[in-house]
Amino acid sequence: MARRIITLTTDFGLKDPYVAEMKAVILKICIDAVIVDVSNQVEKFNVKMGAYILASASPYFPEGTINVAVVDPEVGTERRALCIQTRHGYFIGPDNGVLVLAAKSQGIEHVYELTNSRFMMPNVSNTFHGRDVFSPAAAHLANGGLASDLGRQTRKITIPEFAKVAKRKAGLVGEVIHVDDFGNIITNIREKEVGPMRTIDNVKIRMKNKWFTLRFCKAYGEVEPDEPLALIGSHSFLELSINQGNASRMFKVKNGDKVVLHPP
Amino acid sequence: MARRIITLTTDFGLKDPYVAEMKAVILKICIDAVIVDVSNQVEKFNVKMGAYILASASPYFPEGTINVAVVDPEVGTERRALCIQTRHGYFIGPDNGVLVLAAKSQGIEHVYELTNSRFMMPNVSNTFHGRDVFSPAAAHLANGGLASDLGRQTRKITIPEFAKVAKRKAGLVGEVIHVDDFGNIITNIREKEVGPMRTIDNVKIRMKNKWFTLRFCKAYGEVEPDEPLALIGSHSFLELSINQGNASRMFKVKNGDKVVLHPP
Amino acid sequence: MARRIITLTTDFGLKDPYVAEMKAVILKICIDAVIVDVSNQVEKFNVKMGAYILASASPYFPEGTINVAVVDPEVGTERRALCIQTRHGYFIGPDNGVLVLAAKSQGIEHVYELTNSRFMMPNVSNTFHGRDVFSPAAAHLANGGLASDLGRQTRKITIPEFAKVAKRKAGLVGEVIHVDDFGNIITNIREKEVGPMRTIDNVKIRMKNKWFTLRFCKAYGEVEPDEPLALIGSHSFLELSINQGNASRMFKVKNGDKVVLHPP
Repeated sequence: MARRIITLTTDFGLKDPYVAEMKAVILKICIDAVIVDVSNQVEKFNVKMGAYILASASPYFPEGTINVAVVDPEVGTERRALCIQTRHGYFIGPDNGVLVLAAKSQGIEHVYELTNSRFMMPNVSNTFHGRDVFSPAAAHLANGGLASDLGRQTRKITIPEFAKVAKRKAGLVGEVIHVDDFGNIITNIREKEVGPMRTIDNVKIRMKNKWFTLRFCKAYGEVEPDEPLALIGSHSFLELSINQGNASRMFKVKNGDKVVLHPP
Repeated sequence: MARRIITLTTDFGLKDPYVAEMKAVILKICIDAVIVDVSNQVEKFNVKMGAYILASASPYFPEGTINVAVVDPEVGTERRALCIQTRHGYFIGPDNGVLVLAAKSQGIEHVYELTNSRFMMPNVSNTFHGRDVFSPAAAHLANGGLASDLGRQTRKITIPEFAKVAKRKAGLVGEVIHVDDFGNIITNIREKEVGPMRTIDNVKIRMKNKWFTLRFCKAYGEVEPDEPLALIGSHSFLELSINQGNASRMFKVKNGDKVVLHPP
Repeated sequence: MARRIITLTTDFGLKDPYVAEMKAVILKICIDAVIVDVSNQVEKFNVKMGAYILASASPYFPEGTINVAVVDPEVGTERRALCIQTRHGYFIGPDNGVLVLAAKSQGIEHVYELTNSRFMMPNVSNTFHGRDVFSPAAAHLANGGLASDLGRQTRKITIPEFAKVAKRKAGLVGEVIHVDDFGNIITNIREKEVGPMRTIDNVKIRMKNKWFTLRFCKAYGEVEPDEPLALIGSHSFLELSINQGNASRMFKVKNGDKVVLHPP
């Protein structure tokens, strides 16, 4: 059988042994699994950021990839654990919305609740289902096992509440869904929505109650270093940047802030 | 032969090329080794923290796993380098206590001093035995080589001085052995020692000369967000936490601080 | 065919999904590639630091290793993308100097410009050639493909402007090329240049307009904890350190600062 990829998206950080414990459990069951960290530096308990990061990376992985996401503030309570089977692969994690953005864009086929203790660690802790529940489930799939082995089928999934882009008098109202490590401001406004709102050269944007007219570019390097610009980022979202600088710091904008895109 | 896992626990950080150089040396000798980072963000020179993190992760890895730990402030001096063979696997690193906590819990079978230059880099630097001595030794084992090839057998091992939990009039006196990235305060008081010191619902704990009565829970989510709690963490130690918050910041407690557990 | 190693050196950080997207693209084309992160924490846009880190790690990897480096402030502009074939392996990345230090020390054999869209992602973004251009090129080589498939041969390469060590009246004048995570100050003065400038025990060094006489050691542990020292680091450069301390903080020295080595 072809080797299967298991991806990890967590808020565990890299200082502690938690991510390694997940990998240990996976490799003990399936030594040939190819494990790839998507990010272990999701902001603690920030389910939306985890969902965005997973949804950004997952389209690039090959068919059959098994994605595990652990941003799980309610671990050990009644919140359910899921395996979502899509047309392209699998998503395993808590039922709190962290999986759905990525899974939906691949086309959801079946959803299973992780209830079969045969595919869990012998002693499931109340604080670390990433290691004790999600990792053995992922390794079972990597071994060629069926998602339907993991538990009963279900139709209920928690949908994360991402702000929708709204049409208002002032323009298109969206929000910042991610500030990346470069300080690039990534909004939830998609390429096709940006079209009618721009001139050939510029877009007009309101952030923090101020209007800015930004050069609309194809690459960061089209403006001088330290100049601001707008572009469609590599994930087809409107992105606000500073060439070789930090836009989030310059515009004092953070995750969740409102962004208004004005018509020309 | 089955593929072997080599784990890395270091204080090298991830900015510099040091960890990659270790992996390069390993893969040049054994391209099929499965290398897993346990943590490369052990606090610089903090041998106790390295020992705790390695001991936390190592029980989850399969039999035959080769664990390399490099928290090595005395590199290049007379301190010895060891390979400890246990009933479950191998531990390679400096003889300063970083290996022993993990190795002892697996049952130590033989200890070898790394003296055979055949299994070292041709030019051993005085500053980086992780790359020049420990990595080639680990790769030799991953290739199915014997630990006894690596050097002469020895009986001497340096034992790290972890504080023991003491029974005093005020209660059980332990210490903070780790503050994780979530701010969870992990003590050296074990599950079985906590039993007689709690009521059904609560434990009474002194930190920084103040007494706190904390709800004793099975999961973080049993208290409201931002509420404190006590629980037995996933490694069977008493842990003090804030649901979705940072306990270390709230109680102003850090690594090494004293913790007293009062009888009910 | 033997498994091939692909190394990654980037300024992407580990919070965002960018590194994982590169790995996804590589593994989709070559599931057996062994991917090793050299560093993803190169300072943003710091081409010199990326060049130094890549040149430090690359000599330790086995023959045939494919090194990808993405410190790429001019992505999407006219700057060219290269694959440099050396006597030892391959270097793929932007033509801005980040590859050359490492490639030259292996002996450059051929240089190809990445122009063949057959070995790129179907839609090449203007902001992320690491994923869309460099990763598929690397995966093609990992599959045993030829570098000459990737595009037309060229002779032009951008050479990075690293300061040369200069002989002046005051002594040898070099600069700080890297401050590592321990705070060790790594200079561009090589072991053989240090020889005539030291006594048996000491070197005299000027940093920030002050002269320091430092003990010349073979290992950090030869001086007391918190004492300064000079030594030849594991990459044969003169390094200034504090035993178990942070030299960069103590001497207030940073990347690019001048260092003068005085004759005895």
